[in-house]
Amino acid sequence: MAHKDSVAVIGLGRFGRSLALELVDEDTEVLGIDENPEVVQLLSGSLTHVVRADSTNESALRQLAVHEFDRAVVAIGSDLEASILTASLLVSFGIQDVWAKAISEAHGRILSQLGVRHVVYPEHDMGRRVAHLVRGRMLDYIEFEDDFAMAKTTPPADLVGRRLADSAVRTRHGITVVAIKRLGEDFTYATADTVIEAGDTIIVAGRTRQTERFSELQ
Amino acid sequence: MAHKDSVAVIGLGRFGRSLALELVDEDTEVLGIDENPEVVQLLSGSLTHVVRADSTNESALRQLAVHEFDRAVVAIGSDLEASILTASLLVSFGIQDVWAKAISEAHGRILSQLGVRHVVYPEHDMGRRVAHLVRGRMLDYIEFEDDFAMAKTTPPADLVGRRLADSAVRTRHGITVVAIKRLGEDFTYATADTVIEAGDTIIVAGRTRQTERFSELQ
Amino acid sequence: MAHKDSVAVIGLGRFGRSLALELVDEDTEVLGIDENPEVVQLLSGSLTHVVRADSTNESALRQLAVHEFDRAVVAIGSDLEASILTASLLVSFGIQDVWAKAISEAHGRILSQLGVRHVVYPEHDMGRRVAHLVRGRMLDYIEFEDDFAMAKTTPPADLVGRRLADSAVRTRHGITVVAIKRLGEDFTYATADTVIEAGDTIIVAGRTRQTERFSELQ
Amino acid sequence: MAHKDSVAVIGLGRFGRSLALELVDEDTEVLGIDENPEVVQLLSGSLTHVVRADSTNESALRQLAVHEFDRAVVAIGSDLEASILTASLLVSFGIQDVWAKAISEAHGRILSQLGVRHVVYPEHDMGRRVAHLVRGRMLDYIEFEDDFAMAKTTPPADLVGRRLADSAVRTRHGITVVAIKRLGEDFTYATADTVIEAGDTIIVAGRTRQTERFSELQ
Amino acid sequence: MAHKDSVAVIGLGRFGRSLALELVDEDTEVLGIDENPEVVQLLSGSLTHVVRADSTNESALRQLAVHEFDRAVVAIGSDLEASILTASLLVSFGIQDVWAKAISEAHGRILSQLGVRHVVYPEHDMGRRVAHLVRGRMLDYIEFEDDFAMAKTTPPADLVGRRLADSAVRTRHGITVVAIKRLGEDFTYATADTVIEAGDTIIVAGRTRQTERFSELQ
Amino acid sequence: MAHKDSVAVIGLGRFGRSLALELVDEDTEVLGIDENPEVVQLLSGSLTHVVRADSTNESALRQLAVHEFDRAVVAIGSDLEASILTASLLVSFGIQDVWAKAISEAHGRILSQLGVRHVVYPEHDMGRRVAHLVRGRMLDYIEFEDDFAMAKTTPPADLVGRRLADSAVRTRHGITVVAIKRLGEDFTYATADTVIEAGDTIIVAGRTRQTERFSELQ
Amino acid sequence: MAHKDSVAVIGLGRFGRSLALELVDEDTEVLGIDENPEVVQLLSGSLTHVVRADSTNESALRQLAVHEFDRAVVAIGSDLEASILTASLLVSFGIQDVWAKAISEAHGRILSQLGVRHVVYPEHDMGRRVAHLVRGRMLDYIEFEDDFAMAKTTPPADLVGRRLADSAVRTRHGITVVAIKRLGEDFTYATADTVIEAGDTIIVAGRTRQTERFSELQ
Amino acid sequence: MAHKDSVAVIGLGRFGRSLALELVDEDTEVLGIDENPEVVQLLSGSLTHVVRADSTNESALRQLAVHEFDRAVVAIGSDLEASILTASLLVSFGIQDVWAKAISEAHGRILSQLGVRHVVYPEHDMGRRVAHLVRGRMLDYIEFEDDFAMAKTTPPADLVGRRLADSAVRTRHGITVVAIKRLGEDFTYATADTVIEAGDTIIVAGRTRQTERFSELQ
Repeated sequence: MAHKDSVAVIGLGRFGRSLALELVDEDTEVLGIDENPEVVQLLSGSLTHVVRADSTNESALRQLAVHEFDRAVVAIGSDLEASILTASLLVSFGIQDVWAKAISEAHGRILSQLGVRHVVYPEHDMGRRVAHLVRGRMLDYIEFEDDFAMAKTTPPADLVGRRLADSAVRTRHGITVVAIKRLGEDFTYATADTVIEAGDTIIVAGRTRQTERFSELQ
Repeated sequence: MAHKDSVAVIGLGRFGRSLALELVDEDTEVLGIDENPEVVQLLSGSLTHVVRADSTNESALRQLAVHEFDRAVVAIGSDLEASILTASLLVSFGIQDVWAKAISEAHGRILSQLGVRHVVYPEHDMGRRVAHLVRGRMLDYIEFEDDFAMAKTTPPADLVGRRLADSAVRTRHGITVVAIKRLGEDFTYATADTVIEAGDTIIVAGRTRQTERFSELQ
Repeated sequence: MAHKDSVAVIGLGRFGRSLALELVDEDTEVLGIDENPEVVQLLSGSLTHVVRADSTNESALRQLAVHEFDRAVVAIGSDLEASILTASLLVSFGIQDVWAKAISEAHGRILSQLGVRHVVYPEHDMGRRVAHLVRGRMLDYIEFEDDFAMAKTTPPADLVGRRLADSAVRTRHGITVVAIKRLGEDFTYATADTVIEAGDTIIVAGRTRQTERFSELQ
Repeated sequence: MAHKDSVAVIGLGRFGRSLALELVDEDTEVLGIDENPEVVQLLSGSLTHVVRADSTNESALRQLAVHEFDRAVVAIGSDLEASILTASLLVSFGIQDVWAKAISEAHGRILSQLGVRHVVYPEHDMGRRVAHLVRGRMLDYIEFEDDFAMAKTTPPADLVGRRLADSAVRTRHGITVVAIKRLGEDFTYATADTVIEAGDTIIVAGRTRQTERFSELQ
Repeated sequence: MAHKDSVAVIGLGRFGRSLALELVDEDTEVLGIDENPEVVQLLSGSLTHVVRADSTNESALRQLAVHEFDRAVVAIGSDLEASILTASLLVSFGIQDVWAKAISEAHGRILSQLGVRHVVYPEHDMGRRVAHLVRGRMLDYIEFEDDFAMAKTTPPADLVGRRLADSAVRTRHGITVVAIKRLGEDFTYATADTVIEAGDTIIVAGRTRQTERFSELQ
Repeated sequence: MAHKDSVAVIGLGRFGRSLALELVDEDTEVLGIDENPEVVQLLSGSLTHVVRADSTNESALRQLAVHEFDRAVVAIGSDLEASILTASLLVSFGIQDVWAKAISEAHGRILSQLGVRHVVYPEHDMGRRVAHLVRGRMLDYIEFEDDFAMAKTTPPADLVGRRLADSAVRTRHGITVVAIKRLGEDFTYATADTVIEAGDTIIVAGRTRQTERFSELQ
Repeated sequence: MAHKDSVAVIGLGRFGRSLALELVDEDTEVLGIDENPEVVQLLSGSLTHVVRADSTNESALRQLAVHEFDRAVVAIGSDLEASILTASLLVSFGIQDVWAKAISEAHGRILSQLGVRHVVYPEHDMGRRVAHLVRGRMLDYIEFEDDFAMAKTTPPADLVGRRLADSAVRTRHGITVVAIKRLGEDFTYATADTVIEAGDTIIVAGRTRQTERFSELQ
Repeated sequence: MAHKDSVAVIGLGRFGRSLALELVDEDTEVLGIDENPEVVQLLSGSLTHVVRADSTNESALRQLAVHEFDRAVVAIGSDLEASILTASLLVSFGIQDVWAKAISEAHGRILSQLGVRHVVYPEHDMGRRVAHLVRGRMLDYIEFEDDFAMAKTTPPADLVGRRLADSAVRTRHGITVVAIKRLGEDFTYATADTVIEAGDTIIVAGRTRQTERFSELQ
């Protein structure tokens, strides 16, 4: 296992597990570490390597050559102390690219102070994202920071049957149609000649508020 | 509070809290419910209504008129039993649009069997999303189901200094550039005349694998 | 073991154990499952098969071929979560005839919402039944729903020594004498010619209130 | 409250609660006692008296005049020690008619040794009863001890359309038809002239094995 | 081991242990039973037989032939439930001479109701006995029920140097001197000719109050 | 309360409670101290003073003037640490006459090392005493150290009907008859003229082994 | 309270308490913070301010103006998580001079990574110091890092009665005598004319090993 | 292992561990004892002997020949009961030189009453020592009892560049300069001819208050 190109994922709960499996899907080698032997057994075969170890123990990590990795993810969820002890070790190893999941602002602040470069808040981020789906007619929604969002939605009636170039959707709604999906087909990106039909699903992009408002049109 | 247009959010941990605050930000009325008085006190003033109540108790929910809501979110995280008992009550109230957070596949299956329409897996979804950031040079990534993804990334060298219309990016890379952000400015959507400069951040869309590959170009 | 004709009984506490043993007594094959190895050891030899397994684990159930059974009983008593997880799996297997014990109304409602066809409340039902024994002179009592009950009791004085046909018991008391038991003999059903003697035990049937009242006669 | 005619019910869980409510339904005065203030509040108004008290404390019971009752039920479920301490006090008060629920054979033996006259095993009894429903086509089943049982079932095809007197059901099947229920009507007891129709529900009585067998006829 | 002449001692804490060792000292065969393997190991070799077993389990006791003993002691101290379950089994075995230690009045009452013939209260009895030592000059004290006690004490000054027959101790103090111990010698019973010397220790007997008062004389 | 003549009893469980009540019976003033408010309430009125206090807290003891007592009893049973902390304080106060109950040899050794003058082992002492009752026909037994014991027993047949002076009981059995109790009367001490009758209860004294043997005579 | 010149001491166990009291003795103002109300009450009056607060709560610390202090000590002992959360907040406040007690190397490393400037290991340091006292004849010992130590000890015989200047102690033993204490007097620093007498206590300084060796001379 | 010259260290937490390792560094043989097998494994190889044992068990200690040691340290930290039980045993073995760590005044008092000769309070002593460092400019500080202290500090400006003999530091500040350390060199003791330079670190001695004051000079 070429540690330099691989990722060490420590903590294989919901978050760590799906992260690790996705990495493997994308042909990245993954060393998964968890304290729970049942979890390790469950994932053995699915990840490049899965090991039962106490990640708060420096020599245990060194035996697994974790200090030679360039990228590591602390995906420990509920045990604040274990998360911090592990992150502290990874930083002390000199690993540049340490990612860690935080469960509270205080947790996130400590991880940053320790030197963790990327702090992720799954519960918080998903909460915000789902909020947009709960209140509106959107099918999916994502906000790229910087007041710019995308939404998967159904097109309003007045767009149906017209070429995008003729629809003045940018002028009138402040959004652009990025992609379109016919029933039974895959998504493809939209062009000026694309004609939207009833039953299509579209992805639009634009400023957060305008994207929201457009999605509410019927 | 007009219950028909409002959302009841039950469970105000990380996920429920950020969901509820985002809804309020978007001018949606929110009734927040949690068992923990400290959490309730913390959020009082931030949500339309915040109440300390045991959501597994039918009469408690009825006193709060939860059965008159059209949309409700079960954001209870760690207590499987409380999540199920609460979701069961909401379904028995006849609320159409019940959302619930699941922490495992079994949990999700039970919620669906009970009649919950929208089941969300924050840890799992964020795990998959972060996987793409960990391994590549992307700054953000989102996969709209149906094999269509978007990524925030820096442009490869050979795109810099050319009009998008001249760059043949769709032909050569199978992706489309959706939006662009100059240093110190906000994102704006890209047009055929947009010229990408070094230091820009761009958002691109396309099939999952092609979007990934494009992001890895330097 | 022909799974189609057998019954899987999950949870071998008081309720599940006596249910399973009664089934075996009636020549039905039973697969008993419990988490507790001591319980399993105790019953091994008494049931067709007894296995120690975690019934909330799908693959554990599949290894035991539980998904091939036509009838299954969730007799898990005190652990609400385990009861629900197990019942959810049985329903997802497509087993038509799932029975489950509920310990509260909420528990029962969830089981029904999950798709469990028969929900049983032992504590509740026995409480109602015993109530009739506590207050009266009845020796046993059973209420078939629909306001129709039966009671085992001693005959009132004015019935003794008369042919049933002559006693006008239906007219006067609104009940019918179903069976009679002489001292030292077994029960046999009563006929028009039966003469009730002092010391007999009788079973009578009729509307709930009339059966009660008749039992109180001396 | 006339203690002599009333019943003290100690322990208001599932079993005690339904027992107490059934007694009140039948116009018997009930003093309900439980340690849990929530349970007491829930039932106040439904029982003649409901009091929060520690039933293992002799002076607490005396203050409630429990020693003056003629009938008392120890419906304490899961706490063996509390059940025994309470039963011991009731017996020491000289109450003749003490009923108690047992959760195991050892528990039942101790209650009997203490002098409790009636020991009830809800889980065990319901387990046996439900066993008959699980395996057959019966809708309800009750076994009066002494090898004599009753079952609610649907009539076999060859009984339909004939007068009971002509059906030779006693001779051929060893059972007697006790009562019959037309669709949309209540149960009424059967007579020689009753003609069974398709769609009827019947109650039959007879020896245990014969009743079982009859119910399996189609 | 001749069970008829032996004693089964169940529970080998402080009380049971010293009881069992004293029996062995007096050449009585003892079967000691305790749940704790460390206790069993500690005493193996000191008692005739010592076995690790769960005394609340009927078959465990029968395997040890406890039901064939004529005398058994339940010396279980702190676990009320285990004490009662064990005593109940011994009584159900028909053992005539069951002794049991009680830690409270309620415990004692239950043991008696179960049919335990001899109930002992070590803490209570020793408390009373030590009370007499705490307050006075006595060296030891024992009260045989029926208002008759004995005390080990030092003789008052006016008894020293006189023959007991001449001391009128019975008339003046209402007590009798039972035994006397010279410095460096053993106790021997006193006679009319015994002359008490300074430095002697004496044992006196009499009514409780008079024995107390005599011991306070200097 | 004159502290010099009173006794402070710390810990009012079984042992401390009966000790304190016996002292009060004997007209000694008692200050009872316990941590448990229920215990304090129960005994208030029965002891001279009863106070809820943490006896391991020096200033709490000083506020109650415990340091001015001449006699104190540490009757704390199960909490080794509290027993030692309290005893340490009493010794540091300079109280001469400190009694303490020990639950093990190690506990007793520590109490002695701390400077506690009188260490009592109730469980151990009662265990030894009861051993004599379990195996023989004695009604009570007490061993004064120094190989000298007393027993309450029934007289052997060959003593009945004879004057004690004529019975040669000392010569033949090595014991002396101390006291005698006629049916329905109190104990009185025996004299040379006492004639023992069938049905009497007697108290005998002598060397341990001889007292035992005499008690076994029939 | 002038926060700039004061010290905030968080955690008032053994270490924090003696640190805070010593500061007050030296006329430094101290704000003491602890979660335990009993500790706070005990120290109120002894420190400038003592407050019950949860130091892991940012707003609680801000209300106490802790962010305006220049010096703060995290003296939280056993709760690793609370220690880290508190230290993280103090660092985020921009306090320059944060001291913190560590209970393990990992704890210390995390504190340093967070930005705590001074990390103290009381148990570890005292262990090393006491080691020197255990093994030798020294009365006290302190090692200033850099291989230079001081010891309080008794002078070897060959030094007694001689002027220090004449004793050649530096040449022969490699140490210097810093101070001397006559019986009944205070320490004073030694000069060339000091004559050491038998019974004196001296403080010597020198390289670690030489100081040790000198102390072992008799 | 020559027990007479060795040290038994019981409890290998922070304090015991660093104490034991320091002893080994100084060529003293050490028998380390701890209950925790992980601790024992960690230190095996570092100490002369390390054993897993329950130090509250007399026979366990005797098997290790602890009773033959002349010096023993009870370094048990958090478990008051284990500390006392162990110390009691060591004293009962007749070991003269018993050291023990105390975590509170009460703990220390009990250890002294038991007969432990040297009681150490690491948390308390370090708290006092660190207090001096927190408030001033000192780099280290140690107070030898008797109002005589030493401090490691930087020299005030007016001392720089002068021979110590000429600086009148004793007269003006009441302290003596004991040792001096040039940048990049080790400490060496100061003489009359020593010239202090800027950047030096010095150790000074004197009365507590004068040493403090001198350290604050700039």
